[in-house]
Amino acid sequence: MDSKESENIAVTDAKAAAKGKAAEGAHPTADVAMKTKTQTRRGSKKGLAIVDLVLRLGASSAAVAAAYSPLSSEQILPFFTQFLQFHAEYNDLPTFTFFVVANAIAVGYIGLSMPFSIVCIIRPRAIGPRLLLVFCDTVMIALVVAAAGASSAIMYLAHNGNLDSNWLAICMQYTNFCQGLSGAVVASFVAAVFFMLLVVNSTFALKK
Amino acid sequence: MDSKESENIAVTDAKAAAKGKAAEGAHPTADVAMKTKTQTRRGSKKGLAIVDLVLRLGASSAAVAAAYSPLSSEQILPFFTQFLQFHAEYNDLPTFTFFVVANAIAVGYIGLSMPFSIVCIIRPRAIGPRLLLVFCDTVMIALVVAAAGASSAIMYLAHNGNLDSNWLAICMQYTNFCQGLSGAVVASFVAAVFFMLLVVNSTFALKK
Repeated sequence: MDSKESENIAVTDAKAAAKGKAAEGAHPTADVAMKTKTQTRRGSKKGLAIVDLVLRLGASSAAVAAAYSPLSSEQILPFFTQFLQFHAEYNDLPTFTFFVVANAIAVGYIGLSMPFSIVCIIRPRAIGPRLLLVFCDTVMIALVVAAAGASSAIMYLAHNGNLDSNWLAICMQYTNFCQGLSGAVVASFVAAVFFMLLVVNSTFALKK
Repeated sequence: MDSKESENIAVTDAKAAAKGKAAEGAHPTADVAMKTKTQTRRGSKKGLAIVDLVLRLGASSAAVAAAYSPLSSEQILPFFTQFLQFHAEYNDLPTFTFFVVANAIAVGYIGLSMPFSIVCIIRPRAIGPRLLLVFCDTVMIALVVAAAGASSAIMYLAHNGNLDSNWLAICMQYTNFCQGLSGAVVASFVAAVFFMLLVVNSTFALKK
């Protein structure tokens, strides 16, 4: 090997080393940036998953209140003697049977959906459970809002009556009974708002 | 320059060329695969955007039917003489005023949302318009389902009455009137189903 040749090899080696260094130098910063971005995104997705769980707890408490309140609101009005009484219960109005069943279904659904919500916290990038939750939450919005809307229409009628149809306001007599049911309707609308927030939250979590 | 040196340079050149070729050879296939994947994803997102527009048209026709049908269903019953008549109109039941207004709002909203839906077809990767549409569609589900639920509760009462509250079934007399209103309630539920499909469709389009 002569001196020129060895010099040449040395030069190519140096160039290669420089290139390698440059490449190494470029990679780590890009990697760090990418990793930071990925971690930020992962973190925000995890945050949204935790919000999902909290909203689910809120929805369940509102739905429990809505389902339980009509069961406990009954009123007995004495009528002349104590042997002849008027007894008002929630299932005198068939709409409220549907209302209680719908809210009970919502409570049961939230119980079943909790594990999926927890999976989304542990694995923030999982798409399957989130899609399932969005789909079922949308159905639950419809169920709870339908129950709340139907019951509020009946409660409006019970409070105000309708002269054109000759339907009289029964809340004139059964004040406590009507108050309990109206509270339940409000709780059901609150549960519906929680479900709507759940859908919007999941949509944000699913977007890129 | 001696022969060994030139040989050495030739070898390094050849190696570099081979490396370059290898790099070039790797890149195009990766590029093509990436491009195909991006195009497929773009295509599927465009397909979902077109489905969105079609669902919106379906929802608007159902909502128009629901909003218009009560306006046209009125019934006049003669009562002994022609000077004393019973006249049933949709706004005798206040729930149906809400029902008509809610469905009219849904129709107006669909008209306003059409441009955003078309933007999603032209730019399938736009996220902003889709998020806006999901949010507003969720609110519309609640509005339309609440109107449909409230009206169906009142129609159930009009058909069957309620003995416990002494509310009599008015559909015994006003058959045509009740048929028109019941049809409107069904149309409103159909519109609500379209809105639910819209939310699910947008969620699929938003996912990665």
